[in-house]
Amino acid sequence: MDAIEVIVAKRDGAELSTPQIDWVIEHYTSGVVAHEQMAALNMAILLNGMSRREIVDWTRAMIRSGARMEWTALDRPTTDKHSTGGVGDKITLPLAPLVAACGGAVPQLSGRGLGHTGGTLDKLETIPGWRAHLSGEEMLGVLKDTGAVICAAGEDLAPADRKLYALRDVTGTVESIPLIASSIMSKKIAEGTSALVLDVKVGSGAFMKTVEHAHELARTMVELGLDAGVKTVALLTAMDRPLGNTAGNALEVAESVEVLAGGGPADVVELTVALAREMLDAAGLDGKDPEDALRDGSAMDVWRRMIRAQGGDPDAPLPTARETHTITASASGVLTRLDAYAVGLAAWRLGAGRARKEDPVSAGAGVVWHAVPGEHVAFGQPLFTLHADEPARFERALAALDGSFDLVEHGTPDLLPLIIERIDS
Amino acid sequence: MDAIEVIVAKRDGAELSTPQIDWVIEHYTSGVVAHEQMAALNMAILLNGMSRREIVDWTRAMIRSGARMEWTALDRPTTDKHSTGGVGDKITLPLAPLVAACGGAVPQLSGRGLGHTGGTLDKLETIPGWRAHLSGEEMLGVLKDTGAVICAAGEDLAPADRKLYALRDVTGTVESIPLIASSIMSKKIAEGTSALVLDVKVGSGAFMKTVEHAHELARTMVELGLDAGVKTVALLTAMDRPLGNTAGNALEVAESVEVLAGGGPADVVELTVALAREMLDAAGLDGKDPEDALRDGSAMDVWRRMIRAQGGDPDAPLPTARETHTITASASGVLTRLDAYAVGLAAWRLGAGRARKEDPVSAGAGVVWHAVPGEHVAFGQPLFTLHADEPARFERALAALDGSFDLVEHGTPDLLPLIIERIDS
Repeated sequence: MDAIEVIVAKRDGAELSTPQIDWVIEHYTSGVVAHEQMAALNMAILLNGMSRREIVDWTRAMIRSGARMEWTALDRPTTDKHSTGGVGDKITLPLAPLVAACGGAVPQLSGRGLGHTGGTLDKLETIPGWRAHLSGEEMLGVLKDTGAVICAAGEDLAPADRKLYALRDVTGTVESIPLIASSIMSKKIAEGTSALVLDVKVGSGAFMKTVEHAHELARTMVELGLDAGVKTVALLTAMDRPLGNTAGNALEVAESVEVLAGGGPADVVELTVALAREMLDAAGLDGKDPEDALRDGSAMDVWRRMIRAQGGDPDAPLPTARETHTITASASGVLTRLDAYAVGLAAWRLGAGRARKEDPVSAGAGVVWHAVPGEHVAFGQPLFTLHADEPARFERALAALDGSFDLVEHGTPDLLPLIIERIDS
Repeated sequence: MDAIEVIVAKRDGAELSTPQIDWVIEHYTSGVVAHEQMAALNMAILLNGMSRREIVDWTRAMIRSGARMEWTALDRPTTDKHSTGGVGDKITLPLAPLVAACGGAVPQLSGRGLGHTGGTLDKLETIPGWRAHLSGEEMLGVLKDTGAVICAAGEDLAPADRKLYALRDVTGTVESIPLIASSIMSKKIAEGTSALVLDVKVGSGAFMKTVEHAHELARTMVELGLDAGVKTVALLTAMDRPLGNTAGNALEVAESVEVLAGGGPADVVELTVALAREMLDAAGLDGKDPEDALRDGSAMDVWRRMIRAQGGDPDAPLPTARETHTITASASGVLTRLDAYAVGLAAWRLGAGRARKEDPVSAGAGVVWHAVPGEHVAFGQPLFTLHADEPARFERALAALDGSFDLVEHGTPDLLPLIIERIDS
């Protein structure tokens, strides 16, 4: 077998055999198949697609490229969530301790942000002292002690996916449902969770711009999870507008702590509770209700213990950006539209995101929007506050926000429902 | 501009702009665009195609990546030929001196064989002392003195194409008409010839398996040549069966010398003369007839001077393989089919060809077929003689020839005409 044979088969529209897929993933991981060969194969996959059988094989081969974690030492069932990424999507932060407070064990391996979407690890790293990198033993320790752990994936977790993901990022081959689904699910299955809830975002701020594409991605991932013995459910949720009122690393930590304190933006609370119920249900847990755990402070308790267990100080003030710039309403009216992508792009340009994975991010940078779609805004009231370390960044962020919202005298927003659809098989 | 933007545009079916094409070729040549990015782009081009304007721009950008040769110092018009490659295709060897003997100047930059097709330089290098690598000055000297020169292209001739060709070879992106056409034409236009005849092969032994595909490739290349001010004509010629009676490096030199001596296989003579007439006609020359130049020894004269000018000894015995193996007819009958690809594969396996461009080739290895389609063969007569340096090679060559021909009691072959079509605009 050789790489050209596999590339040509997919290029010409054939279904790759299980041995072909096993061979190409194994030999790409070891370096025998070159980056340029895998890039050509990825483009052929993106343009010609993959059958369900091929996607299952591809995912299995990526899992087999590394270690599979297991959590038999725990006395409670594991349950996890994965979001396909959006703007202002800080849900993991309140969600993991909330589910732990209701009886689940949440072994959450997270990533960093790339492009206009934020990353959970970047957000948590704004908490003074907090460490993203834990050994397997430390991870188990935090999970046992607190019920939840959020950390970086180790080098030995689906290394084929790590290599492939970096390659896709620079070769224009990210937007392929088979490749996205197998990338996400190989990591989540290798992570060893027994239940998984997928939050598949739809809209301008998400990878999937239409409900139809998001549905296909969600269905593909649910099938992959079920095939691998993981109880998997997906929610399609709105990303036509951003989540909550903030996009930016420390800004989102602060908003998450508000939710854990029983407050916070309505949409963040609603989605956090809905996902928590799905995670508990998938794990077969029907004890404490998540709304109660937010109200009685038990979720906040887990949060504080979890942050401390990873070296963080939950009481330390969060970093703030050196400069702010406020945009006010130039007329009174109803905010009928606020584009998620534009807000994400503005936050990115302010320093909250990175263009390449080596780039640093600013802890304090980001966007606060003071109104959400459907709300009335009076003339002169603040609409946005931009946060950045260098004032030079405001100009390009303002350009991103230009035309990103509608403020009209009378009107109602035309939005996707926050939770669009549930897919469980 | 960045590579991902260009890749994504072609991936999504857009037409690339002239600045995009210029940028990506320039930056691939300089190393800013990585191999894996170009591989993804090539696969997108192969699957989504290119408009005529894109192919013209792509070709121009590859020409501009290096030097363009010019031949104003010559007192006769330049005219060249390019074959898309076939089995037993030694036509360049008698053709270049023949056209020179009739008044043309032939600045032929040739390549080496890869896979089942042979390469002109590999063949000529079997002549003791002959050198393929000449400086620009040496090339001009040989051309002035003899009227023809066959040598390797310098490093500065379309370097983008050299890089791209090597990449396509390992990434399953060879079989794209826009990429094949631009690769061939960028080299031939950069070579500076004022007239060009393309021999586009059709059939099992050729890249283009059908007349329809060959026609499209030929038309694309003729348009590229005319656009660049090169008087360009294409002939579609048969490669369902091999050309002449030999495939192998020294074996084909010997057959070429027979043609220059006024003998040789009928099909090799017919095609050589037809291509010579096209080359002379395209250069506006209507002096000596090629048939006369073969008969009166003037073409042979040029050959001998041309070989000597590059260090070769035209009188030295050619190398022969150490071992031979003969296959005889197991019944009397008419040979109605002889598959070009199978014969090429057998010659390759005997050592005449290479699998990778670093591999050496055997000078003496190859296949001689003693009958051509349409001829009657008597029981026990030799059909093939295989030549190899190691007897261990015979077994796999025999496997290639198994089923490659039909020998029937009565019948006539169903062959493509030797010259199928002429395309000049």
